[in-house]
Amino acid sequence: VLCPGQGTRDHPPAQAALRDRLLSAVVSCFKRHGAAAIDTPVLELRETLMGKYGEDTKLIYELQDQGGELLALRYDLTVPFARYLAMNKITNIKRYHIAKVYRRDNPATTQGRYREFYQCDFDIAGQFDPMIPDAECLKIVHEILSDLQLGDFVIKVNDRRILNGVFDVCGVPESKLIPACSTVDKLDKVPWEEVRSEMVGEKGLSPEAADRIGEYVQLHGGLDLIERLLQDPKLSQNKLAKEGLGDMKLLFEYLTLFGITEKISFDLSLARGLDYYTGVIFEAVLLHQENEHMEESVSVGSVAGGGRYDGLVGMFDPKGRKVPCVGVSIGIERIFSILEQRLKASGEKLRTTETQVLVATPQKHLLAARLKLISELWDAGIKAEMLYKRDPKLLKQLQYCEDTGIPLAAIVGEQELADGVVKLRDVATREEVRM
Amino acid sequence: VLCPGQGTRDHPPAQAALRDRLLSAVVSCFKRHGAAAIDTPVLELRETLMGKYGEDTKLIYELQDQGGELLALRYDLTVPFARYLAMNKITNIKRYHIAKVYRRDNPATTQGRYREFYQCDFDIAGQFDPMIPDAECLKIVHEILSDLQLGDFVIKVNDRRILNGVFDVCGVPESKLIPACSTVDKLDKVPWEEVRSEMVGEKGLSPEAADRIGEYVQLHGGLDLIERLLQDPKLSQNKLAKEGLGDMKLLFEYLTLFGITEKISFDLSLARGLDYYTGVIFEAVLLHQENEHMEESVSVGSVAGGGRYDGLVGMFDPKGRKVPCVGVSIGIERIFSILEQRLKASGEKLRTTETQVLVATPQKHLLAARLKLISELWDAGIKAEMLYKRDPKLLKQLQYCEDTGIPLAAIVGEQELADGVVKLRDVATREEVRM
Repeated sequence: VLCPGQGTRDHPPAQAALRDRLLSAVVSCFKRHGAAAIDTPVLELRETLMGKYGEDTKLIYELQDQGGELLALRYDLTVPFARYLAMNKITNIKRYHIAKVYRRDNPATTQGRYREFYQCDFDIAGQFDPMIPDAECLKIVHEILSDLQLGDFVIKVNDRRILNGVFDVCGVPESKLIPACSTVDKLDKVPWEEVRSEMVGEKGLSPEAADRIGEYVQLHGGLDLIERLLQDPKLSQNKLAKEGLGDMKLLFEYLTLFGITEKISFDLSLARGLDYYTGVIFEAVLLHQENEHMEESVSVGSVAGGGRYDGLVGMFDPKGRKVPCVGVSIGIERIFSILEQRLKASGEKLRTTETQVLVATPQKHLLAARLKLISELWDAGIKAEMLYKRDPKLLKQLQYCEDTGIPLAAIVGEQELADGVVKLRDVATREEVRM
Repeated sequence: VLCPGQGTRDHPPAQAALRDRLLSAVVSCFKRHGAAAIDTPVLELRETLMGKYGEDTKLIYELQDQGGELLALRYDLTVPFARYLAMNKITNIKRYHIAKVYRRDNPATTQGRYREFYQCDFDIAGQFDPMIPDAECLKIVHEILSDLQLGDFVIKVNDRRILNGVFDVCGVPESKLIPACSTVDKLDKVPWEEVRSEMVGEKGLSPEAADRIGEYVQLHGGLDLIERLLQDPKLSQNKLAKEGLGDMKLLFEYLTLFGITEKISFDLSLARGLDYYTGVIFEAVLLHQENEHMEESVSVGSVAGGGRYDGLVGMFDPKGRKVPCVGVSIGIERIFSILEQRLKASGEKLRTTETQVLVATPQKHLLAARLKLISELWDAGIKAEMLYKRDPKLLKQLQYCEDTGIPLAAIVGEQELADGVVKLRDVATREEVRM
């Protein structure tokens, strides 16, 4: 009875304070890029969410039918955003949204998977010139990961159109596109041989097709690779791939102007799970640096991702009117775990309150003086506390300051009261001034 | 399909910005009083919530049984807080929590009732000397309502022990205490005669008992009234009432030191609905001032409330160990509606973004220059936007500034590029400087 539900958790003050600090860094980046905040309900109509998440639809939490509409808890912030745009006929907005989402995942909580967790999304909706908003999304990821000093990272970039083109020229039939895609996506975790045998075995591709795919999806690089593929005899004949490669070149041009190409890798194995992506896709991974014996830096998992989804809003519009969108989601829970571990390792104690001064008394019968002084401090906007005891010992009061990190004590004793002054004590140095 | 569920709503940017402003005023008050933030899940075990809300238990949203634990959506923040304290054996904390709660109310949305809405709670848990934390809760209500400039208000205060004592000396049997209580609570909306006839009719009290109750519950005042009731021949013989009145006197002493008694009314008709209150209860109402023809100021509804609940944590503790608590909940939704109406009436337009400068170009083929400049601005922490067009017209760019309230435009043209400068234009005054 005493626990919260499985896969959910409480955030005690120390965690809430760290989370606040992290979220405010993310929000200040989103605001720096001119985004407005919006909020949508946790409860969405069941039918709004159905059919948007592929086979993950089974992870949607549904409310009991207690009469009235059938409701479900939102699974992400992107589908509600698309619903919001279509409903309000908004064709142009730059917004951020930070809120909890819900998934009936099997919580292997040790791996940082939860049933209730925060998402931090920034999206740009509207018909614009190609790749300008897409480049900004990558700039945002770069800024946030740099600001948070999470260590070295790389942002992998690909395009759904390039991926589809690759499969097409390798002879994968249309019906096997999505399964092949999700198999390729595993290349960051398992070697090519395993991916190949899954393609040929489970997914039923021919060995020749698999080998041809292998030649492409193991490629990664920068502008040079884009140029090479634009000259590729097969890909250059494929309409989709050509479009995607052309835009990728433009994207790199913009990223060069932003000065961030060093951290960007055009990676043909990046596929990403969600059905709704239609163009550029990207994913940021942290590179493992702690272990200096390792020859090459190893990825420790995705901390941000996103892409272009030009068709989703149209699914909610009665006339199917499209609103092109591109967005980024910051993997706040994983970043939070990293920062928490780092804080623990450093032994640093994060303050959970912001109190500037404790109002204290050294003798008995001075509660009235404390109440009067603290009230004046509060009214002056100063963060102040006092112990809720009639006659606390001075030592206990100073101990409270040390325990909670309050830097100053404002002490009123009988002498100070008679002289009409307050003694201000620096808790750390024990220096005192009467004022 | 396109709407969010009944009784829920989206908050578009203008509303989200106003709400942010409001919440940050509330949070800064909570922090000024030394509270730490905590967070608990929206999903609680069904059995945690059952039996805590009296007849309102029927308003709890339950999740579909999809295997695993039976879950429900939190109904308020107080019961989860008590569960959190008991679970973690915390006996001493001052915390705030701002989050959404869920109620299957019939949403007469015009009256500002929703199924998903924010609560803003501040609570002090721990065994302390009487009335010091209680007084601080009232000070907090006073600070927030004053800060927000909502107009004149009064904070009604009563004590469950006084109320129980009154019913006792008036001859109400124990079994009819709660029904009698909820009837008395209506005195702020309907005249005494109606309350009396409900007591005698529906609730089955004797006419004599009702009349005796009437003599007490129509009383309101300050220290003078407390003194008078302490001398009352019947009440002064009642143990609970005497305790309550003694503490009320102490409370008024502390509120006098805080300098806020002017806005406090000891009101014997205040009962408050929730079962779990055990001591001081209070409720802040705004006084209607707009209509100058009215002789007396009329209340326009509760905007904050709270009280002491010393037994709730014990309900979750296997050994029934009690943790005394007192807390306040700010009625953020009602305050939000008032501020929104006022903003609408004033014609003032709230900015939804914080962008300081738009990076603009006056000629074609200067996208690269814009991208380079904006990137430098972002890296310097400046909030900057640009239009996502290759070659936007200068007029369009300046128009965008006016529409969204961006105060400055940083213009790079061919001449500026050649001279290595930027032209900074004040959008409102049209003044320009080259720098």
